[in-house]
Amino acid sequence: MDLTEWMNIKLTDVVGKLEESILNGFNLHTEGGLDMGGRHNIYDILDSLLAVLFPGYYTNEKISRNEMNFFLNDNLRHISFKLGKYIKQVFKYHCPQQDKAEKCDCEERADQALVHLIESLPQTHALLLEDIQAAHEGDPAAKSIDEIVLSYPCIEAIATYRIVHQMYELDVPIIPRIMSERAHSRTGVDIHPGAKIGSRFFIDHGTGVVIGETTTIGRNVKIYQGVTLGALSPFDKKGNPRRGVKRHPDVKDDVIIYANSTILGGQTVIGRGAVIGGNTWITKSVPPGAHVYNRSREEIVKPKHTT
Amino acid sequence: MDLTEWMNIKLTDVVGKLEESILNGFNLHTEGGLDMGGRHNIYDILDSLLAVLFPGYYTNEKISRNEMNFFLNDNLRHISFKLGKYIKQVFKYHCPQQDKAEKCDCEERADQALVHLIESLPQTHALLLEDIQAAHEGDPAAKSIDEIVLSYPCIEAIATYRIVHQMYELDVPIIPRIMSERAHSRTGVDIHPGAKIGSRFFIDHGTGVVIGETTTIGRNVKIYQGVTLGALSPFDKKGNPRRGVKRHPDVKDDVIIYANSTILGGQTVIGRGAVIGGNTWITKSVPPGAHVYNRSREEIVKPKHTT
Amino acid sequence: MDLTEWMNIKLTDVVGKLEESILNGFNLHTEGGLDMGGRHNIYDILDSLLAVLFPGYYTNEKISRNEMNFFLNDNLRHISFKLGKYIKQVFKYHCPQQDKAEKCDCEERADQALVHLIESLPQTHALLLEDIQAAHEGDPAAKSIDEIVLSYPCIEAIATYRIVHQMYELDVPIIPRIMSERAHSRTGVDIHPGAKIGSRFFIDHGTGVVIGETTTIGRNVKIYQGVTLGALSPFDKKGNPRRGVKRHPDVKDDVIIYANSTILGGQTVIGRGAVIGGNTWITKSVPPGAHVYNRSREEIVKPKHTT
Repeated sequence: MDLTEWMNIKLTDVVGKLEESILNGFNLHTEGGLDMGGRHNIYDILDSLLAVLFPGYYTNEKISRNEMNFFLNDNLRHISFKLGKYIKQVFKYHCPQQDKAEKCDCEERADQALVHLIESLPQTHALLLEDIQAAHEGDPAAKSIDEIVLSYPCIEAIATYRIVHQMYELDVPIIPRIMSERAHSRTGVDIHPGAKIGSRFFIDHGTGVVIGETTTIGRNVKIYQGVTLGALSPFDKKGNPRRGVKRHPDVKDDVIIYANSTILGGQTVIGRGAVIGGNTWITKSVPPGAHVYNRSREEIVKPKHTT
Repeated sequence: MDLTEWMNIKLTDVVGKLEESILNGFNLHTEGGLDMGGRHNIYDILDSLLAVLFPGYYTNEKISRNEMNFFLNDNLRHISFKLGKYIKQVFKYHCPQQDKAEKCDCEERADQALVHLIESLPQTHALLLEDIQAAHEGDPAAKSIDEIVLSYPCIEAIATYRIVHQMYELDVPIIPRIMSERAHSRTGVDIHPGAKIGSRFFIDHGTGVVIGETTTIGRNVKIYQGVTLGALSPFDKKGNPRRGVKRHPDVKDDVIIYANSTILGGQTVIGRGAVIGGNTWITKSVPPGAHVYNRSREEIVKPKHTT
Repeated sequence: MDLTEWMNIKLTDVVGKLEESILNGFNLHTEGGLDMGGRHNIYDILDSLLAVLFPGYYTNEKISRNEMNFFLNDNLRHISFKLGKYIKQVFKYHCPQQDKAEKCDCEERADQALVHLIESLPQTHALLLEDIQAAHEGDPAAKSIDEIVLSYPCIEAIATYRIVHQMYELDVPIIPRIMSERAHSRTGVDIHPGAKIGSRFFIDHGTGVVIGETTTIGRNVKIYQGVTLGALSPFDKKGNPRRGVKRHPDVKDDVIIYANSTILGGQTVIGRGAVIGGNTWITKSVPPGAHVYNRSREEIVKPKHTT
């Protein structure tokens, strides 16, 4: 086979077919198509936001007390400039008045969402300090606050969630989900931007945790790896997805949920102070203070001859 | 302790011992050793392939309709040049005629595998459009096609799978597995390149999903996080690994498998339209249309005094 | 809303509040604060250490036999220089004599820890060769040693563990945990640096594996995705975290633990040669050679009309 010939002659056909499939299948490439320059630009902004919340931890250099004001000013301006543009883009792209003559309020809504996000950062930081404190109290292996910020995946996952939830609240399309999935990729923790999560939240280990869009979580809740707070069935009786309804559980203050437990349903309430043992399967409400255990007893077959 | 002295005198010993262990243990460094320049080169090619399938989503800039042909041509040539070289390398490295006088057909097979992969890209893209459509229909939280391409980890995992499966089919060694593990690292979804997966495949959340080498999956199948489609036992009665036999299940069209379920065995068939509830453990076939539930009832210990 | 005005006037307020929250909440920015330049510097050193153990696999270029000595010398000096500085930093930062007049031995301990780590690398490499061999024997889908090094996530996870365990043994603060969480992020495998793990260790697939700080694992042990070796309860009866006590299980030689099983407790011993089936929940010791099965029988509801 003559590879050079193939590259000069046949490759053109492949390009034509692929081009057709792309241009027919996706909307992004049209003149009005979304212009954010791909998901990596959004990843960069997320990293900048995390660096602003954890200077010297998530950055590549120590920021001294004297430099802090300058560092924050510089970075927040840069974030505002870049993210402001992209938020406008996604609002316009999803504008319901897109094809109509009416004037839309997308620009105004985009500006408000950006300002809301940036102005919420001090409060977000204060909440994260409480989350870090809860991690320190909740994990016997934790040695210091710095170790927690520098290494615990839940801090990155919760910080990302607390940032993107502010955007979700003001209906910013797409960007919150790109950011939450970035955190999911890096930490194994999948928190939907729409979840409502109180202060002092701690997730230990974290891989496989899923927290759905309409979940609410109270104050001082602790969960372990592999816990799902999910929908009982994401479809109605006709098989259509249940959009816009309460599908995920409510977890009240001071609850602990151990590893690999699954709690499902929009009507399911885990009462205050309940302790949910590992590996449980819960689709009904649990009263406050109750303890729930997996009752399974494994079968042990002893060897015939132990020597 | 004098660290400078240690670095000038003792470090040489360490280097010598480590060098010996590396040169004795690995084959890569000999003259005939594999020359791909490490796994990061393969990661870069995977990223280029994904960028070609999702231009403007997985790239760092928007590609307009006018630029598309140029963009695809440019990138596919670059991919062909680089990947063509590496595919030759891995074929030669694993050549069974390596030490024999006979002429091998490795170069020819490598060229064919490259051409097959590149020529399959339009079909792969068409299949991915169907997967994206299935994700949109299957997830109540999905807001738009663009959101799905830009953020859903299953799209990256399935796209990588559909690419590497083409190489697996033509027996390309090593490279498909490097790429599938890259996707695993980024998405938590571990799909072996050898699995056969039909159209409209959707994985929600995805962390912890494992799909084994000899699995077959029909059309329009939906699975959730933590699902394993695995081997009942990877070893025969003598304790040797069962290589080259059917070890993993068959999942027929229109099946739904909810979170954290485990389905094992090469003789296990999940019949068309079956619904497998969450947290189940299945080692036998399930008839078409059946519903399987986890029967566990958790023990709830109510608190003595609720106040 | 005038975004320019907001940026010139209101943003200053936000910066002030965020600055206050950061300077009050974190210690890093003070003169004596930890100066490692953030977690990315530690990630870079981990990557250099992995490149030194797997030259040509984890690097971007093939290293030939002739170049190996030069390559190792060059890289180990660079690692020693950079990591030596950071180890000093973390020892000083956590120095119990920090605020006292007494002279501390932090510098000396830091140098010893660095030298211990570097001098252990040949032994670490030899152990990793045995782990790779065990992977090759244990996985029917494994095609070659090179494929395993280039693609198996357990190799990256176990290599990182074997490196950081050397630092943990000499009480290096923080850095081992940053590195182990880096591996966790990339592989889904969470091994605490404090665990003691014997030779020929193999983890298949790996996502969701958690191995706690005081776990011991013997020789020739094989575990699958989603296995937790954890604490029964991380808290004592007063609700305080159990620090510094044996909290995690002992797994003896030749044990196999299948996917998604959970084994908990510091008094729990899995006896030599035991086989733990998938999806089990174990909080008591298992005798040598025993087989443990999940007894759950799922409920299958057959459809009324199959057509």
